[in-house]
Amino acid sequence: MKGAINRIELERHILAWLEEDMPFGDVTTDALLDETIVGSGALIAKESGVLCGIEIFEMIYECIDKNVKIDKKKSDGMNIESGDVIGEISGPIASILKGERLGLNIMQRLSGIASKSQIYAEAVKQYDTKIVDTRKTTPGLRSLEKYAVRIGGCTNHRYSLSDAVMIKDNHIAGAGSITEAVRRVKACIPHTAKIEVEVETFNELREVIHTGVDIILLDNMTTEQLRRAVRFVKEHAKKAISLEASGNMTLERLPEVAATGVDIISVGALTHSVNALDISLKFEKPVVK
Amino acid sequence: MKGAINRIELERHILAWLEEDMPFGDVTTDALLDETIVGSGALIAKESGVLCGIEIFEMIYECIDKNVKIDKKKSDGMNIESGDVIGEISGPIASILKGERLGLNIMQRLSGIASKSQIYAEAVKQYDTKIVDTRKTTPGLRSLEKYAVRIGGCTNHRYSLSDAVMIKDNHIAGAGSITEAVRRVKACIPHTAKIEVEVETFNELREVIHTGVDIILLDNMTTEQLRRAVRFVKEHAKKAISLEASGNMTLERLPEVAATGVDIISVGALTHSVNALDISLKFEKPVVK
Amino acid sequence: MKGAINRIELERHILAWLEEDMPFGDVTTDALLDETIVGSGALIAKESGVLCGIEIFEMIYECIDKNVKIDKKKSDGMNIESGDVIGEISGPIASILKGERLGLNIMQRLSGIASKSQIYAEAVKQYDTKIVDTRKTTPGLRSLEKYAVRIGGCTNHRYSLSDAVMIKDNHIAGAGSITEAVRRVKACIPHTAKIEVEVETFNELREVIHTGVDIILLDNMTTEQLRRAVRFVKEHAKKAISLEASGNMTLERLPEVAATGVDIISVGALTHSVNALDISLKFEKPVVK
Amino acid sequence: MKGAINRIELERHILAWLEEDMPFGDVTTDALLDETIVGSGALIAKESGVLCGIEIFEMIYECIDKNVKIDKKKSDGMNIESGDVIGEISGPIASILKGERLGLNIMQRLSGIASKSQIYAEAVKQYDTKIVDTRKTTPGLRSLEKYAVRIGGCTNHRYSLSDAVMIKDNHIAGAGSITEAVRRVKACIPHTAKIEVEVETFNELREVIHTGVDIILLDNMTTEQLRRAVRFVKEHAKKAISLEASGNMTLERLPEVAATGVDIISVGALTHSVNALDISLKFEKPVVK
Amino acid sequence: MKGAINRIELERHILAWLEEDMPFGDVTTDALLDETIVGSGALIAKESGVLCGIEIFEMIYECIDKNVKIDKKKSDGMNIESGDVIGEISGPIASILKGERLGLNIMQRLSGIASKSQIYAEAVKQYDTKIVDTRKTTPGLRSLEKYAVRIGGCTNHRYSLSDAVMIKDNHIAGAGSITEAVRRVKACIPHTAKIEVEVETFNELREVIHTGVDIILLDNMTTEQLRRAVRFVKEHAKKAISLEASGNMTLERLPEVAATGVDIISVGALTHSVNALDISLKFEKPVVK
Amino acid sequence: MKGAINRIELERHILAWLEEDMPFGDVTTDALLDETIVGSGALIAKESGVLCGIEIFEMIYECIDKNVKIDKKKSDGMNIESGDVIGEISGPIASILKGERLGLNIMQRLSGIASKSQIYAEAVKQYDTKIVDTRKTTPGLRSLEKYAVRIGGCTNHRYSLSDAVMIKDNHIAGAGSITEAVRRVKACIPHTAKIEVEVETFNELREVIHTGVDIILLDNMTTEQLRRAVRFVKEHAKKAISLEASGNMTLERLPEVAATGVDIISVGALTHSVNALDISLKFEKPVVK
Repeated sequence: MKGAINRIELERHILAWLEEDMPFGDVTTDALLDETIVGSGALIAKESGVLCGIEIFEMIYECIDKNVKIDKKKSDGMNIESGDVIGEISGPIASILKGERLGLNIMQRLSGIASKSQIYAEAVKQYDTKIVDTRKTTPGLRSLEKYAVRIGGCTNHRYSLSDAVMIKDNHIAGAGSITEAVRRVKACIPHTAKIEVEVETFNELREVIHTGVDIILLDNMTTEQLRRAVRFVKEHAKKAISLEASGNMTLERLPEVAATGVDIISVGALTHSVNALDISLKFEKPVVK
Repeated sequence: MKGAINRIELERHILAWLEEDMPFGDVTTDALLDETIVGSGALIAKESGVLCGIEIFEMIYECIDKNVKIDKKKSDGMNIESGDVIGEISGPIASILKGERLGLNIMQRLSGIASKSQIYAEAVKQYDTKIVDTRKTTPGLRSLEKYAVRIGGCTNHRYSLSDAVMIKDNHIAGAGSITEAVRRVKACIPHTAKIEVEVETFNELREVIHTGVDIILLDNMTTEQLRRAVRFVKEHAKKAISLEASGNMTLERLPEVAATGVDIISVGALTHSVNALDISLKFEKPVVK
Repeated sequence: MKGAINRIELERHILAWLEEDMPFGDVTTDALLDETIVGSGALIAKESGVLCGIEIFEMIYECIDKNVKIDKKKSDGMNIESGDVIGEISGPIASILKGERLGLNIMQRLSGIASKSQIYAEAVKQYDTKIVDTRKTTPGLRSLEKYAVRIGGCTNHRYSLSDAVMIKDNHIAGAGSITEAVRRVKACIPHTAKIEVEVETFNELREVIHTGVDIILLDNMTTEQLRRAVRFVKEHAKKAISLEASGNMTLERLPEVAATGVDIISVGALTHSVNALDISLKFEKPVVK
Repeated sequence: MKGAINRIELERHILAWLEEDMPFGDVTTDALLDETIVGSGALIAKESGVLCGIEIFEMIYECIDKNVKIDKKKSDGMNIESGDVIGEISGPIASILKGERLGLNIMQRLSGIASKSQIYAEAVKQYDTKIVDTRKTTPGLRSLEKYAVRIGGCTNHRYSLSDAVMIKDNHIAGAGSITEAVRRVKACIPHTAKIEVEVETFNELREVIHTGVDIILLDNMTTEQLRRAVRFVKEHAKKAISLEASGNMTLERLPEVAATGVDIISVGALTHSVNALDISLKFEKPVVK
Repeated sequence: MKGAINRIELERHILAWLEEDMPFGDVTTDALLDETIVGSGALIAKESGVLCGIEIFEMIYECIDKNVKIDKKKSDGMNIESGDVIGEISGPIASILKGERLGLNIMQRLSGIASKSQIYAEAVKQYDTKIVDTRKTTPGLRSLEKYAVRIGGCTNHRYSLSDAVMIKDNHIAGAGSITEAVRRVKACIPHTAKIEVEVETFNELREVIHTGVDIILLDNMTTEQLRRAVRFVKEHAKKAISLEASGNMTLERLPEVAATGVDIISVGALTHSVNALDISLKFEKPVVK
Repeated sequence: MKGAINRIELERHILAWLEEDMPFGDVTTDALLDETIVGSGALIAKESGVLCGIEIFEMIYECIDKNVKIDKKKSDGMNIESGDVIGEISGPIASILKGERLGLNIMQRLSGIASKSQIYAEAVKQYDTKIVDTRKTTPGLRSLEKYAVRIGGCTNHRYSLSDAVMIKDNHIAGAGSITEAVRRVKACIPHTAKIEVEVETFNELREVIHTGVDIILLDNMTTEQLRRAVRFVKEHAKKAISLEASGNMTLERLPEVAATGVDIISVGALTHSVNALDISLKFEKPVVK
């Protein structure tokens, strides 16, 4: 299992998104199609990738009209090819049309993220290194986009500023030193939260390994620097500390970075620069019920 | 002027986005930086493009802490180069950090859209053809993404299903014919709304030009078919009808499509497949006030 | 078809309206009637008019208690006479009572609007002139009140400030001239939006007909001025422009205004000054289930 | 003092109403007027009545743009004549235009209610009888419409189903008798809540006066019946009980109903059937700042 | 009947509370339990008291997953003993776990209030005195906590600042005298609202009994002072006035205070200082469906 | 620093809480006190404890009326004695009264939690053991109640189901074994999240120490069992694992539990069973401005 979508908040979002697309209804459909006109169609993949969002597509129609039925042929996480039938939809055509654009928009974006994540995960599959996302997600879609990252085979960095500690240069400057910053944070945060510290130099690395942190973020280092950092921590740290590489982590560079022995590589582009996966809804001719 | 951002809804969105990123506060910052620690930083472009979202960045800090000040050096719509200072920010470091990620996420995405739009607009600048967006926007961000498209030099298609009529094959099937569909819609919609009909064949085109519609969407046609359609409408329509080309409108194809004489080319990729424009926030060392 | 109600936002509104009427429940009913006490009643028209809102009445009870059933005898748009049974309601009396006032309040107001609209539409039925509403609607009820106007046989002006352009004197002053205002707007708005310009003098009319606008609002003109304006535009405009008369459009004046040949007459009173249509809920004696 | 507007909920409502009128901004104004173009105007009464809502008008602009200033010349509750200047408004024209329609819509409706209420209150001023409103208010506007009733010189019936008990025939049938219904309610409700019972016959009246209720609603009685009821209660009730007349309380009938000695007359039409009071916003020519 | 829970607002609250506990889902359960794994469990009382909230517990699961079923063995208001089975729950274990904490949190708190209320009500059962709550409730839970007070056998004071008048020293100072304050309030409030005045001295008591108020709050008086006040009002007031004792009303003191003849004793501690009643959810071993 | 209050969500909550207490305004105050009547008062502690919530008290008045000023004499976390002046308040009396009850309700509850937390923290101060709270918080107040726990000197367990993993018997049963459950979770969750496993027997303890978890919850063990468990883990675990004792952790038992060497003791009663700390608002006589 790769974790579920968070349904509690989703219905609230879906209704807001539908209102965004229909502040005063669908003027075309409302004028031309009443509920007795039914029809069906198929969700067709137009390119290959990883499907993500078919359950959300289904929930959208539960919000619009319970008479619209989705018969899923593929499920989230499956690889799809151009031409594949992802699902079939049937019911009142007016209702189908009102949700079509929203349903495709969200499913195409999430499938785009899942497909990209799969490619990035593949690139390091021979290593013990995980590719993780960042907080560089679309405002309002964090939960869904992080779900798509998992569906594609990568894993998540922290969900928000609330669920793990990340100490950066400003925090260190405020506290006076890395050591003092970690000490203060430990006195205050839940014992269930891990502490990560971002370092840019070996001086900082030398200090941080003795503070009892759980993870070290190695920011903007060259591959050679990363290799030295991994070795340094392995030799000098008294407890296991996870090492995360970050900054300019392009797809091309991933294998060599993974080969340095870092445990985690974080990639903002998994969510901030994504091509929608092309999926279309192809209709049969509607009939009057 | 290219239209303003819609401030009324924006504060509501900003607060929701901040709650998404801080359901229980910023545990790191809340433990380490109190409000007496102030500092400053600069928003620096890391690549070239069109800036979009600097006012929203500013509004985010109005929501977080009125003591944070933004001194804008660039404004929306300006072309920026790598290294350019977009603005300077100063105030309590804790507050600056809490809004940093959200501010960059939204500004980078909107600047990405504006930059892409500028490239597409440039491609047809010698023609009288407009490049327009579609409803393929991120759920929840329609208003902002359409603003970014305008800032980049393209224009907008309809905002939602409520503000213009778009008659597609299902609507036509429901009504029986294009002529009947247009007749029924006219009896029902505001006199202020334009009517657009989507056609895929010349048979349909022959019928639609006599119905009094305002715009014809020529869907998925080859460049040659578009050229013939333009000529046909010019020769046979009794009133001016705008012609919109849609479907597979890649950047490469735009000049030849524009050369066919269509008035509008709609491009979903302006908003559905976007690379964030790289912008970073570079801090000075914080000081205690 | 006269367009559907916009169900997406309606449930949200209904719940807020019920909370307004029951911030701490219905103290009387909660003390006296438990869910085993069922009953039935009939919605009876107490005066004649056009019914509007019966589906909303039904949705209100879907929100309160799915055990309440409405058997509709009339549907929106039907003419009803005093004494007519509009529908029958049955289920737990406690639930019926909790929604009664809200259900009647909304249905009576919408039926009042529909009934008034029918009278105004009738007054010009021998002309090609449409009676349209305005944005003078009750805050929060725009979508429903515009639906009621259509149900009564008139049509709608724009829904909001977002879906069509209306250039008034302030806009013209800001741009310098009508011609410049129209030019600037065209460069910025969706190609799907019509442009309407408000004029008060013939000088303005002379300028506006050459700008390519879609609609001209003739504001506060006498019937004779309207007649001259219609003739002037017919003679001098190169393309068809719709003409809308506005200002002091009383019921009595409508036929003579329609006779001038204007295409549209807008009437704020359709929604801003309305008498509720009297409808009551008559109960049978309740029984214990 | 006639009670204040309930400001806590009002800002929330104002923002929702502005979003209703601008789901995607004011396309005309956003294209033509930037914030450097300022101007001023005056709110002018176009007919005589009682002003209500000027503070809400002001709050609307606090929500839109704090640079818009209102200089109030009249305040809520003042009688105004056609031609009176109610207030002056100045600031960025773009912002003024965005709130104009909402501000007038709400102020015109509330002033219509206050003006009607004043006429009804005047009709019984020589009696000790109060005219009160009902729960027949516009969904979403209860608090404001009841404020307008007070401003016009009438008083309010209960605000909602939660703040006073009203026992009707269904409740009595559920409990078995009036006596039993009152007994059960007393055991359950706050000691701070009054109990009112609706009666239609003298048999019911005979029973209810011994139950310790605070108010009796005499529903749909003739003036003669009301007179007899007043006398009967005065003679037989052991404690003071307020008497409320309800049902078909037209303006014409009020004096004779008041003369019967009832304490309260409730009139649904104060809020359910109202003509907006005509008020307009007249602009000076805008200038560039 | 002791009044129903106010279901209209409750679903909105439940969804918000679930989002509070799962901003990004239940990371443990989402990783380990899919919907095919079902199970059952029992709600067991761990101490004795009055049950309150079982219907809300059920509604929580209606919001999470309609496949979770609750078989209620006890209902609100019943006395339960340690070891009693309150209800049985079955369905997908993942869904059961997601609502468990919220369901127990709310049911334990409400049962704590009901249990405490029962003890306080018992303490005065031989007198005609009612124990009532105050507005010292948990923000956001007023409606539910007041329901729990009723379930426990006490009754409610006013629900909010809107549903009854309570004149305190500041109001009196503003008006000039008690008499003037009551006069002004009567001219403004609904005729359905009772008026209560808080007095601390016999001088105030002497004035207030001639003003026509409904209730007098005797604040912070000794038992002897209360006895004298009761006698004084009985002898000198011309109409029945309810007397409420307030301030330091500990459980121990209740019988002697009730013996003074006051009608109402208000106790803030019923809701502001409450021990949760211990209830646990005991699971059977889950199985795969 | 003990972490800040989460201001982003707080204003939203405060407005909702004020609406709960004033659905239709403060009828008493609105009738008697206009904004020209100003006054002042003092927040006085009526018993000793730890202050918590004074900033929230201040924020409440920022929401109601910016003319109300709070002069704080104490700040969150300070120990206060009966009679201490916590702060002074001045401004329009009407506004002060509208926020008084809410302000005191929230500050008294949070101070009650902080005071209780201080006592529990004191009880183990000679040990290296932390007292932590649980998710047994009041629905809607999690963030604030956990803040109060920190202010009192204890620390927090996880904030929600989203920010740390807690594997319980049902999860283990679903996965087949502890080892398998931990393995699956690790593959799916953020690398920033700690994993805690609840065990009730030594058999489970023997298995769990080899799985790489971060924390072990020792549930419902006797002090002797806890001592053995601590020794067992110290001897056999290969990496440091935090040990948390939970279940029946009464104040009396804390020292002996801490003496066993467990790292963390979690106490639900810190938030689920709390006495409000008595604080009152004492007014000076109001004056007309």
